[in-house]
Amino acid sequence: MTLEDLERRVRAVEDRLAIIDVIASYGPSADSADGPWLRSLWAADGDYSFDTTRMPAAELEGLVELPSHQDYLAAGCGHLLTTPHIVIDGDRATAVNHSVVLVHEGDAWKPDRLSANRWELVRTDDGWSVQRRTNSLLDGRAAARGLLGRP
Amino acid sequence: MTLEDLERRVRAVEDRLAIIDVIASYGPSADSADGPWLRSLWAADGDYSFDTTRMPAAELEGLVELPSHQDYLAAGCGHLLTTPHIVIDGDRATAVNHSVVLVHEGDAWKPDRLSANRWELVRTDDGWSVQRRTNSLLDGRAAARGLLGRP
Amino acid sequence: MTLEDLERRVRAVEDRLAIIDVIASYGPSADSADGPWLRSLWAADGDYSFDTTRMPAAELEGLVELPSHQDYLAAGCGHLLTTPHIVIDGDRATAVNHSVVLVHEGDAWKPDRLSANRWELVRTDDGWSVQRRTNSLLDGRAAARGLLGRP
Repeated sequence: MTLEDLERRVRAVEDRLAIIDVIASYGPSADSADGPWLRSLWAADGDYSFDTTRMPAAELEGLVELPSHQDYLAAGCGHLLTTPHIVIDGDRATAVNHSVVLVHEGDAWKPDRLSANRWELVRTDDGWSVQRRTNSLLDGRAAARGLLGRP
Repeated sequence: MTLEDLERRVRAVEDRLAIIDVIASYGPSADSADGPWLRSLWAADGDYSFDTTRMPAAELEGLVELPSHQDYLAAGCGHLLTTPHIVIDGDRATAVNHSVVLVHEGDAWKPDRLSANRWELVRTDDGWSVQRRTNSLLDGRAAARGLLGRP
Repeated sequence: MTLEDLERRVRAVEDRLAIIDVIASYGPSADSADGPWLRSLWAADGDYSFDTTRMPAAELEGLVELPSHQDYLAAGCGHLLTTPHIVIDGDRATAVNHSVVLVHEGDAWKPDRLSANRWELVRTDDGWSVQRRTNSLLDGRAAARGLLGRP
């Protein structure tokens, strides 16, 4: 084994941890209503598709200002994401995981959205960024289940 | 410090990340109903115990075909697992974490199962695999709590 | 690149994985009612603030004996934490994540507490430890959202 061999292995674990951290940042950015932080997780030309909406990265700063998001924040909410299964291929990666939005209601919190997520990520000069996130409600539709398919 | 010392440390972080990824793969494999993928997480002679059932790895491909699982998929479901606490000892490891199954019902998702999990993992020629997973409902029984005991 | 450069990078990934593991240990320690384990996650002079309570580390062993915690255990409960977003600065680190407590009720589990968490961690001779954890219910109050702010 050479130093160069070992450096490649270190880079692989750095990549994996960086991707875990990018995805772990989404919930805190959404629930602290920090639009610039949320947007910074995406590549400049990336996008985010959920329900029937597709938002380009340039508009993601405004996601936390949407009436639906403001209602969540006022009631009390949490965007919880599971640790993704990740497959890295050079400067590209695919990750799959679940997300659930819990909203305060009465004396408890209601699971208001449960979604499948598929993330396409790309290595940029600023580290790993989201090129595309696709989110679909796990309400029985086959398309949502398909997002969780083996990368 | 020598290159060999550092290689041992790199191997330890690779091991930990590989185990995190194996366990993070369970939910997506179950919810995309990919039996071969789900089975591939286990060692050939491994097993999975839940409730009063013990399934050997050879039968795990059929887990996603069970009527109870098909009902979950039709309704809309998510098997969410937390990131495990992991203790590695050479070619063996023990991990403990929680899992929750959310099922679509009415206008929300119902936490239908909350379980404690104890995973025994083993290093194989194909990487880390599950030798034994034991899952028990956290409904007040002491045995379930015991699964989460410090490895 | 030198061996020393690479060692610094390995140390950075070791740090990150150690912090992930400390935080992943909280739920299992709480739900297996292992007070000494739970306390061991904290630095000797650390503390844990939740609701209107501030417990010094020296008292954390007793957290699992509190009537509220014993009621949770008897009913069946899970303290689920998401993987944190982590920023490391030398021998200090800050992490932010969500936690949710699910409690058995009827034929399901009720999300009884949803909280924002901010963790200040410190490198000790025994590895990374919690210096301060601040936990606040996400019930609409701005202070809770603030805990999730970008470190």
